[in-house]
Amino acid sequence: MHAAAISMNYDHPACRAVLRQVRQQAPFVYGLTNYVAAALSANVLLAAGAAPAIGAAPGWPAGFGGQAGAIWVNAAGLINCTAQDMLDAVRAANAAGVPWVLDPVAMGAGIGEYDAIIRDLARQGPAVIRGNASEVMALAGGAATARGVETTASIAQAVPMGQDLARNKQVIVAISGPEDHILGPDGRHLVVPGGHRLLTVVTGAGCALGGLVAAALAVTPEEPDRLVAVAAIHALYARAAEIAARSAGGPASFATGFVDVLAHLQDTDSSDGIR
Amino acid sequence: MHAAAISMNYDHPACRAVLRQVRQQAPFVYGLTNYVAAALSANVLLAAGAAPAIGAAPGWPAGFGGQAGAIWVNAAGLINCTAQDMLDAVRAANAAGVPWVLDPVAMGAGIGEYDAIIRDLARQGPAVIRGNASEVMALAGGAATARGVETTASIAQAVPMGQDLARNKQVIVAISGPEDHILGPDGRHLVVPGGHRLLTVVTGAGCALGGLVAAALAVTPEEPDRLVAVAAIHALYARAAEIAARSAGGPASFATGFVDVLAHLQDTDSSDGIR
Amino acid sequence: MHAAAISMNYDHPACRAVLRQVRQQAPFVYGLTNYVAAALSANVLLAAGAAPAIGAAPGWPAGFGGQAGAIWVNAAGLINCTAQDMLDAVRAANAAGVPWVLDPVAMGAGIGEYDAIIRDLARQGPAVIRGNASEVMALAGGAATARGVETTASIAQAVPMGQDLARNKQVIVAISGPEDHILGPDGRHLVVPGGHRLLTVVTGAGCALGGLVAAALAVTPEEPDRLVAVAAIHALYARAAEIAARSAGGPASFATGFVDVLAHLQDTDSSDGIR
Repeated sequence: MHAAAISMNYDHPACRAVLRQVRQQAPFVYGLTNYVAAALSANVLLAAGAAPAIGAAPGWPAGFGGQAGAIWVNAAGLINCTAQDMLDAVRAANAAGVPWVLDPVAMGAGIGEYDAIIRDLARQGPAVIRGNASEVMALAGGAATARGVETTASIAQAVPMGQDLARNKQVIVAISGPEDHILGPDGRHLVVPGGHRLLTVVTGAGCALGGLVAAALAVTPEEPDRLVAVAAIHALYARAAEIAARSAGGPASFATGFVDVLAHLQDTDSSDGIR
Repeated sequence: MHAAAISMNYDHPACRAVLRQVRQQAPFVYGLTNYVAAALSANVLLAAGAAPAIGAAPGWPAGFGGQAGAIWVNAAGLINCTAQDMLDAVRAANAAGVPWVLDPVAMGAGIGEYDAIIRDLARQGPAVIRGNASEVMALAGGAATARGVETTASIAQAVPMGQDLARNKQVIVAISGPEDHILGPDGRHLVVPGGHRLLTVVTGAGCALGGLVAAALAVTPEEPDRLVAVAAIHALYARAAEIAARSAGGPASFATGFVDVLAHLQDTDSSDGIR
Repeated sequence: MHAAAISMNYDHPACRAVLRQVRQQAPFVYGLTNYVAAALSANVLLAAGAAPAIGAAPGWPAGFGGQAGAIWVNAAGLINCTAQDMLDAVRAANAAGVPWVLDPVAMGAGIGEYDAIIRDLARQGPAVIRGNASEVMALAGGAATARGVETTASIAQAVPMGQDLARNKQVIVAISGPEDHILGPDGRHLVVPGGHRLLTVVTGAGCALGGLVAAALAVTPEEPDRLVAVAAIHALYARAAEIAARSAGGPASFATGFVDVLAHLQDTDSSDGIR
């Protein structure tokens, strides 16, 4: 762990507070994401109590971008919508004061044309950038270290660059890995330990986390509270993974159990909500 | 329940008759639907014994639209195909006498450009329009009450407008909700009680129902029988949900169990087919 | 079984060898496939230890096509990318010496425009063509016998035409059916018995097999070894299906169990790796 970092897990009261707000407010969360991860992302959001809609039907990006409580833009969504759709959505969000998450999937895999689109999106003012080590490093201006959608870089390498990115772009940067690091534009640094290796063999698990982070933004209007809210979502994700792994027979039953657990995590007490 | 409405559940012999026909004939059912719901929709159709194909590859809409036993057009499919693809499919269907289902997903969410496409599709002569309360009300000319893909209107508000829509467009209108209402162009009104709340937290469950309604149309050539066949599919869906909910640990295991149960529902006796 | 055919199942040491190589090398496997099958395909590849990426984001086909260890092109991917994307990917693959799999989904269903694209792809030099009986027969120049994405032809009809195809195009042809036939350009003929009927009621199960075959190519550099490697993947798939079927309650729990089993199949001993 890094010197000034503060550790935070699901036992932190902020996790229950965020979950309670999501379940009470059922925020409309709009996503431009990829078809590989879309169904899991929607199911994760529904399990947490949010109301997701996904995709760039005619008029949706500009319309839902401004109507939603928050939006998330998953760069791999470019396999099924255009860069213009994404720009339309984030501009509508910005105009309406709707916070949004940018997930720079596969950034830094050596595809210049693709990376340039993400770099342009990152200039539009996301509230949160969420990715793995390679993606965050690439977006911070580092070398290309991704292999397809996977990282080959370590969290230790990514954190200092993520801190620069957070400060330079005045954005919360969340880096997923064996432990997750949530970095504030003001230098705050939260670390979320735990989670489970099985999350890395379920396609779209990271993408779905981006959607859930958007749900947290939707119920957290004050900017200073958002760093903790983003960390809370990561802690909730980690705990749900740990619980689901206990009874999983492999990655597919783990994914099923993970969504089931998310639906049962309690917002009112300190138990894990599993009977 | 409404005055002239007749209640119908899975114990009605029409449910077994429709299921038996689908399993015997294995109708080719072609769908233009969205990538969030596509896999579940295909799996639901396969579980019921139908032979689905999904999507607008070059030549498929005009080709499969006329070859299939029935087709379903899910408006949110506009996230991955064009309005022209949908028009090609329904015109080919019409030319070949193939019945089709229109599912006006997210109609009435305030996106004029999108709603206009659905209104145009509704003018092409669907056999069935299937949606939630907000969607049916919007298509009937009512106010916009949808929030993304979710309804904020009640069934009670939607039924009278659905009845007008059925009469004016000479179409069967099926409204999904805590109880489902199936409305005929001739004023017939069937109500399907039951189902389970968990269906609302599985993404694409409503969309998949649209595909299954198409399968019912494919095996029900006579128009007067179709109202009952559509209600039968809703009753089958409701019963499968009730059975699956008994052993579900949450929404994801519910979805798994739901498809398993659909595959086991018997067409030959009055048991629920579960050993 | 055919005269010169050699039977091969998961007990053959080649199966463990291929699985061990995939788990050790974790090859980057890039796919252009359809959104119905995409998530299952990615999960199957992850379960086997490979590193998949899917879809045609800007720059990906030409970039990932050359970077990957192998690629697979599923013709039904034309529902969400262009023929040009597919050509870009396979040309990049060819230029870099990356082997690729062509899966001619729905070939021979009577859609001339669509079939012509697949025929053009088949001329670009795939290492393997993998499909069902109708698809292989259509690609070999036979009559159209597919119904949507389903075959209506028998393996017995398809094998002689597949053998011609293998010889004429100097390609390995793998035909899936009640037993799978793997046909070499040199006349070798392997038969993989077993598997399970439930594989045919899980959408995308055949498509995912195409991705797994690509993973096998990625870890099998020598052409003469590839025929056995392709058969090994089919044998692994069949065994995983048989094991998963034992405890499945229907097609959805079967699909979950199938991916779980794939993740547990051992590469080091002759047991089936299930505790």
